[in-house]
Amino acid sequence: MKRVALWVTYEGTSFSGYQVQPNGRTVQEEIERAVSRIHKGEQIRIHSSGRTDTGVHARGQVVHFDSMLSIPAERWPKALNACLPDDIRIIEACYVASDFHARYHAVKKEYRYRVLLRQEGDVFRRNTSHHVPYHISVPRMQEAAQTLIGTHDFSSFCAANTSVVDKVRTLFTISIEQDRDELIFKLVGSGFLYNMVRIIVGTLLEIGSGKREVHELAFILSAKDRTHAGKTAPGTGLFLWKVDYNEPIFSELY
Amino acid sequence: MKRVALWVTYEGTSFSGYQVQPNGRTVQEEIERAVSRIHKGEQIRIHSSGRTDTGVHARGQVVHFDSMLSIPAERWPKALNACLPDDIRIIEACYVASDFHARYHAVKKEYRYRVLLRQEGDVFRRNTSHHVPYHISVPRMQEAAQTLIGTHDFSSFCAANTSVVDKVRTLFTISIEQDRDELIFKLVGSGFLYNMVRIIVGTLLEIGSGKREVHELAFILSAKDRTHAGKTAPGTGLFLWKVDYNEPIFSELY
Repeated sequence: MKRVALWVTYEGTSFSGYQVQPNGRTVQEEIERAVSRIHKGEQIRIHSSGRTDTGVHARGQVVHFDSMLSIPAERWPKALNACLPDDIRIIEACYVASDFHARYHAVKKEYRYRVLLRQEGDVFRRNTSHHVPYHISVPRMQEAAQTLIGTHDFSSFCAANTSVVDKVRTLFTISIEQDRDELIFKLVGSGFLYNMVRIIVGTLLEIGSGKREVHELAFILSAKDRTHAGKTAPGTGLFLWKVDYNEPIFSELY
Repeated sequence: MKRVALWVTYEGTSFSGYQVQPNGRTVQEEIERAVSRIHKGEQIRIHSSGRTDTGVHARGQVVHFDSMLSIPAERWPKALNACLPDDIRIIEACYVASDFHARYHAVKKEYRYRVLLRQEGDVFRRNTSHHVPYHISVPRMQEAAQTLIGTHDFSSFCAANTSVVDKVRTLFTISIEQDRDELIFKLVGSGFLYNMVRIIVGTLLEIGSGKREVHELAFILSAKDRTHAGKTAPGTGLFLWKVDYNEPIFSELY
């Protein structure tokens, strides 16, 4: 029995999120179905670095599962992609230690959030960005964002309906870059609470538009209360970009 | 009565092409429905620079129609976009001379074709590129492509089932650029026959992969016979990029 790790990408638009659920198509069930087909129908559970919500995309999701098959690592992507719908693609596979866990061994995660700043929407980016047709000040958001760096109780930036008790997380870096009509938010942290990136981005956009003041962010963070933060930005702009482990498991392309 | 010209973009994936037809959703019918709604139900015919096929995209389609309404030009996009599905967006509108015709007055058209050169497909570009997982020589295609520049009878690069009689067209420029894992073919000409860009790209890809020799292209062109050329490349990679008139009608962004 060998443990296989996969670098998985998906366009989240047509999924009811990552995790298997009674209603709606999910990424997990599609990958489990493909893995099962390669194992002649045997049910095999796959484990991910974490779930993603409806409409949220992944450039660098990581999953693992155990297999009795002796398939060379470089053949797994092609074999699985032949059984997968075209909005999920496996980019790389590798064999990992038998105690590797995609979720519990993750030491760092990067999320990116894409905002489209233009008058009218873009048909080619409508499912992979959040369209904002009014003026946003990037320097205001950059100034406010610095407040969030470090280890904090991020309760104000966590969906109210979560069961997680410990809401302390470490945000290593947060940057906001403009490239023509696009804003890219990059957040790297030890881990993220439910909706944390989307609530941070939603609140920063309210600061950027002038609806809130720059200094409000420190107050919101210290309040430890979701009701003080801004709106949750839509899932369409969010990408799970990269998951890091103590040792790199994929090629340098990852 | 004033004539309005629109800069239209659409992602062709969910359309059965541009032109109205009995079965299937089309770009023309969606725009006519939106224009009609703004005119309180009055049926208004719109005219385009030319049709596009199923799955083909437009970054710079141009259409025109006549209206009795006195709406400032800059308000048309927002008004129409509010009535349009999100895979069609109007970027700009302007008033043009009453004898302007989007199709008959076009003097130059640019099409682009995007090819993805990588082992596994890309979930984010699957509907807007043609995925080629094997090696392609760009210099071979560039050398062969020069043969096509100029005024020629392009019968070999025209779908067999067309009713057009005069198949002489002028290809001003053709370029093929590589940017990381993407190839962009850019073709600028006086006009293009049915499937002409897709058959040219399909044939060049066969030369790039080594299936055909570079010098074959001159023979294929002179044969004036569709059966000599290569396969028609899929519509997903094709974009109607720009339509030029004697005078620019939109802003310099177009």
